[in-house]
Amino acid sequence: MKNVAILISGCGVFDGGEIHETVLTMLAVASAGANYQCFAPDIPQMHVVNHLTGEVDANANRNVLVESARIARGEIKPTTDLNIDDFDALLIPGGFGAAKNLCNFATNGSECDVEPAVVQFVGEFKIAHKPVGFICIAPVMIPKIYGAGTKGTIGHDVDTVQAFNLMGGEHQEAAVDEIVVDVHSKVVSTPAYMLAGSILEAKSGIDKLVSQVLAMS
Amino acid sequence: MKNVAILISGCGVFDGGEIHETVLTMLAVASAGANYQCFAPDIPQMHVVNHLTGEVDANANRNVLVESARIARGEIKPTTDLNIDDFDALLIPGGFGAAKNLCNFATNGSECDVEPAVVQFVGEFKIAHKPVGFICIAPVMIPKIYGAGTKGTIGHDVDTVQAFNLMGGEHQEAAVDEIVVDVHSKVVSTPAYMLAGSILEAKSGIDKLVSQVLAMS
Repeated sequence: MKNVAILISGCGVFDGGEIHETVLTMLAVASAGANYQCFAPDIPQMHVVNHLTGEVDANANRNVLVESARIARGEIKPTTDLNIDDFDALLIPGGFGAAKNLCNFATNGSECDVEPAVVQFVGEFKIAHKPVGFICIAPVMIPKIYGAGTKGTIGHDVDTVQAFNLMGGEHQEAAVDEIVVDVHSKVVSTPAYMLAGSILEAKSGIDKLVSQVLAMS
Repeated sequence: MKNVAILISGCGVFDGGEIHETVLTMLAVASAGANYQCFAPDIPQMHVVNHLTGEVDANANRNVLVESARIARGEIKPTTDLNIDDFDALLIPGGFGAAKNLCNFATNGSECDVEPAVVQFVGEFKIAHKPVGFICIAPVMIPKIYGAGTKGTIGHDVDTVQAFNLMGGEHQEAAVDEIVVDVHSKVVSTPAYMLAGSILEAKSGIDKLVSQVLAMS
């Protein structure tokens, strides 16, 4: 039975991991007969957003690992606990947490840096040549981690696509139910809620991505 | 197209709405071709639990509506905004939030009270004779809202089953992939994570429950 790591970036679309995408990722892995183990970096969130009003709560502080544990029903490990030999593949759901906590793309755009704990964590899969699936906005990290010329998709937003290419990535357009595969780097991406208007649309691309990542593992 | 209300009790299994159950409920509604609108009571959570350690964070305060908005991607209304004529049915996912925020079963057992905003909200569906689906631990509210003799299922825990019957409910055993239907009251229940060992097991009962509730609407 295959074992898949899922890297979560908090709990909630505006400051953390997108909840639907994360649960749909778990569901797709389980439906394929594979196991999953959740991980998150033990770092502070960039900020906390009130998801009812959309406003930043300037007085609040939350931790990415602690909040990610909510989606994982408590069964989660810090990224530093990874033993790469135990895993066949990695999946990274989106949400602004991927662009605010896993890297600082949300504030720095194409000049962004990837969080060191994430560089280390994803880097282990890269070095071991194990496939990684990036969902929604998470593909902004692909050029920084995999280097120039790596293919990925990030939705239709012109500025985001431009930034992806400025960082050295090779952006490819894809519809919400499509995936983009970089065969050489074993990197797969799908737009999910960068384009999805419903949970069913998000599911369509995530199911394909998980299937492809498992097939490459 | 049918419109279904989903009542959420926070965001996270130990102090709020169970995230997998809530997303699986949304997915089942959308898969059936129906619309959903999320609601939550605008009240403080009973407490905040660190989902990594399992410990209560005595210094934290969170609001049920604000946290539920995370699962709803911001598209949520307070329970007081319900217009019953707009909805065909109601679904209530579980998580400890159903027993800590929607009622105080977690602390008071069979002597519990249901939160007044929830009595009012679910009561509108009861009066209009529109079907309501209770998932996981949420069925503890059935006897209090629907009165003695109403059938429901709550898993296999002996103390919880006894409390359900002490409150006047008529408990029926059901497996994780089964539902219990009270035809007279139009109340449906399923154990979900009261019994489920995986997201696929939780999905099996929730899919049946949603299908039954939609069929009765």
